[in-house]
Amino acid sequence: MYTYDKRLPDAQIDDAIARTRKALGDHGFGVLTEIDVKKTLKSKIGVDVDNYVILGACNPKMAYEALKLEPKVGAMLPCNVIVRSVEGGVEVSAIDPAASMAAIDNPELKRVAETVRTMLKAVVAEI
Amino acid sequence: MYTYDKRLPDAQIDDAIARTRKALGDHGFGVLTEIDVKKTLKSKIGVDVDNYVILGACNPKMAYEALKLEPKVGAMLPCNVIVRSVEGGVEVSAIDPAASMAAIDNPELKRVAETVRTMLKAVVAEI
Repeated sequence: MYTYDKRLPDAQIDDAIARTRKALGDHGFGVLTEIDVKKTLKSKIGVDVDNYVILGACNPKMAYEALKLEPKVGAMLPCNVIVRSVEGGVEVSAIDPAASMAAIDNPELKRVAETVRTMLKAVVAEI
Repeated sequence: MYTYDKRLPDAQIDDAIARTRKALGDHGFGVLTEIDVKKTLKSKIGVDVDNYVILGACNPKMAYEALKLEPKVGAMLPCNVIVRSVEGGVEVSAIDPAASMAAIDNPELKRVAETVRTMLKAVVAEI
């Protein structure tokens, strides 16, 4: 398992994105990027996929801690939260930063990642 | 090791970003996001860090392949390339997607990640 998920039955995608952004903000995460995967794939290679948005979330204090411990950790940042249409509604999935950073051998960074994991779990629970 | 790096002695940050974008484009990667870490940390928490930019690169064909194999892989996308000031110049570091996706247990996805790794290594070599 590399994400924490929440199924929102009968939700609309735009509403789900707004709820996710709200919960992230309430827990100190800014949304630095938003990628519309459906639009990108359609415009770049002409394929049709279902609604799929990647929000790049960042808690600046935690990011700063991580960067001090591991200068290249930006290669794994921000923490993504995906919001996508699934059968019967929308699913929101927040990355487990300890999973995405599993390949970095740095015990202190791992502790920071685990703290952020706990914060993102709280976000997902609240959506 | 979770990135492929190239040191650009005496380079300026803006020039290094432009060269990185050019090399990515030449190898079929669009840049979907750009995060100015220095500006973000300054404005959000008032701390000063050196130049540090995260480019979110995506080869749409490969991303589409990955999404078909692993619907939640968007939690690990796009592939980041960081460009940052270091002593004596600028360092460019491209994520190894097989490292960032190490926690996903999916052998077919791993093969796609390894293909993208080869492409990103070629990008870094060319900068």
